[in-house]
Amino acid sequence: MRKVAIIGIGQTPVAEHWTKSLKELAGEAIFAALEDADMPSVEALYVGNMLSGLLEQQEHLGAWLADWVGMLSIEAFKVEAACGSGAAAFRMGLMAVASGQVNNAIVVGAEKMTDALPIEATAGLATAADADYEIIHGLSFISLNALIMRRYMHEYGWQHTDFAPFSINAHANALHNPNARLHIPLNHEKYIKARMVSDPINLMDSSAVGDGAAAVVIVPAEMAPRTAVRVIGSGAATDTLAVHDRKDALWLTAAEKSSRQAYTQAGIEPNEIDLFELHDAFSIMSALSLEASGFAERGQGPRLGLEGEIVIGGRIPITTRGGLKARGHPVGATGMYQIVEVVEQLRGLASGSQVEGAKIGMAQNIGGSGATILTHIFEAA
Amino acid sequence: MRKVAIIGIGQTPVAEHWTKSLKELAGEAIFAALEDADMPSVEALYVGNMLSGLLEQQEHLGAWLADWVGMLSIEAFKVEAACGSGAAAFRMGLMAVASGQVNNAIVVGAEKMTDALPIEATAGLATAADADYEIIHGLSFISLNALIMRRYMHEYGWQHTDFAPFSINAHANALHNPNARLHIPLNHEKYIKARMVSDPINLMDSSAVGDGAAAVVIVPAEMAPRTAVRVIGSGAATDTLAVHDRKDALWLTAAEKSSRQAYTQAGIEPNEIDLFELHDAFSIMSALSLEASGFAERGQGPRLGLEGEIVIGGRIPITTRGGLKARGHPVGATGMYQIVEVVEQLRGLASGSQVEGAKIGMAQNIGGSGATILTHIFEAA
Repeated sequence: MRKVAIIGIGQTPVAEHWTKSLKELAGEAIFAALEDADMPSVEALYVGNMLSGLLEQQEHLGAWLADWVGMLSIEAFKVEAACGSGAAAFRMGLMAVASGQVNNAIVVGAEKMTDALPIEATAGLATAADADYEIIHGLSFISLNALIMRRYMHEYGWQHTDFAPFSINAHANALHNPNARLHIPLNHEKYIKARMVSDPINLMDSSAVGDGAAAVVIVPAEMAPRTAVRVIGSGAATDTLAVHDRKDALWLTAAEKSSRQAYTQAGIEPNEIDLFELHDAFSIMSALSLEASGFAERGQGPRLGLEGEIVIGGRIPITTRGGLKARGHPVGATGMYQIVEVVEQLRGLASGSQVEGAKIGMAQNIGGSGATILTHIFEAA
Repeated sequence: MRKVAIIGIGQTPVAEHWTKSLKELAGEAIFAALEDADMPSVEALYVGNMLSGLLEQQEHLGAWLADWVGMLSIEAFKVEAACGSGAAAFRMGLMAVASGQVNNAIVVGAEKMTDALPIEATAGLATAADADYEIIHGLSFISLNALIMRRYMHEYGWQHTDFAPFSINAHANALHNPNARLHIPLNHEKYIKARMVSDPINLMDSSAVGDGAAAVVIVPAEMAPRTAVRVIGSGAATDTLAVHDRKDALWLTAAEKSSRQAYTQAGIEPNEIDLFELHDAFSIMSALSLEASGFAERGQGPRLGLEGEIVIGGRIPITTRGGLKARGHPVGATGMYQIVEVVEQLRGLASGSQVEGAKIGMAQNIGGSGATILTHIFEAA
């Protein structure tokens, strides 16, 4: 397999972009990545997006975006795996370049959510769960996660406040990220007093949706400058779509499998990871990701937060640019934000929340309630 | 690049499947392909589908289907490129296996259209065109094609009846395909008298939508039995999404580019192709595909029909199992039906419409009005 390197990154701020369309946002991220890579165009474009058909009556985003950015006639498709669409598109780009079918590619994750009514966006997000067996009962994404969190607290004896460090860390790191959705300091008191959304998940356990786009330019490693960040591990796995079908609703089997694939490819162990951009759509997901990816014992994820291990300077810094909680969660774009942020860290550009001496970073993107999970590992030159 | 072979095929009839859901249809095709390949499961599943989010409020089809067919935890995503989704998913599977990231995969194209109201399906199909610059004016897919056909007739001096051979050939071949949507003989008189839909396109110029699924199992060629059909060429290209943005609305630039890529990879010329499954969503598209893919001079596509070159036994047999016109056009599945049908021909299994001694077959799948076009070339063992 040809090894692949990332030679350009680009992103827009995650925000309520009332004056910019989905294609303008995606175009901005693409042009920024091309400029960073010092390339005028590429051979292929892979787009991660979840909701444009439902919220904007626009499918066929590959050709639509290739046309918009002026790269007429290049190969272009959309890849969809719910909130895991960004990393799924990245994995497709990786395989395209690794296969030799294309010599370079842009992968962009893009999502526009705030033009839709909140109820439309909620209904759109629900298409990631099982329409026949979950959504039909009135479940939403947040209530599914609330059921998981309640069971987890019961099973392992945690209190709601034990999850506070995940959100406080994310908000603290986002203060230094100009592209973050929320620049709002969070403390323990604010966390506890936040409005309840779906018990036990309150507003400060929940990520902030938004509009945004993030992109990378990838090439075969042998054609990349020596300083380029390398992709050294890639894994993808699935689980039952419906949470109630799992033998153990408190274990992310797809995170375990995809992270193991990635560790094996990279030839490393979890303790060699310098930072971990995980998928903290809700604070419970941070705990579950840390456990299934080998950073904590089963049921002990919150301990890492309580013991100060997840902050910059800790044993395994997470959500170093704000995570889904505070950088924001433009769903189909999120996986690409995570990858762009790992590259920022490995290039030493994460001013204010830089993990000193970071050499190896990991990104993990989740679709649905853990039904699709992709894990990628990157190494600094 | 690792070469790839197809070791199993499966399909459902294209029909109004009122008693079967999308996942049941996709599952049937998958199980048939696995049985044909004599494999119990695969490492990855790539799904081509266009409309499930809009028509069934279900996205996240990768994990959803992997779960349904009992292949828990395998990699699985959806690939979307409008009506070109099937071949786009196939190309993704091809690149995944060629890259070495997976050792085998199923690609399935699946679509369920008849549960929706016709107006919902028409609105869903319109998401393949430009929402901001085409659909907003009230254009539908059929009216876009009618504008192209009218201009083509004006520019090159053809009459409507000159397109009859495309539809008559498709219906004749479908009579021998048990999986075809329409088993209705068509003659010149019936063609001319058919109800007008969007002048000059009448009902007999138009493909039949429907429900269906088609699947293949692919592996590296070196792991395939000697008798397996090989993928020897793959190309993908795009054009402007909106037809009015093209320098020449009567030329499928993306067909020209993607077929050239495929010919170059395969090391062959068009005259070496024994049969061509083209994307006859409307009869005008048959003419344009034949021209851009090197089988006819510009503006002379209909001549091939009039001179008897496109039938079984002719110089370049097309739509040998009925094509979109009569096998049917379950949009996101169509590209996979084309590929399954080429394999049937190369295995000598196309009883009644077999191209005798067929060694090399080509499939071309179009998304939108030519904005995404994929061309694949296959060789018999």
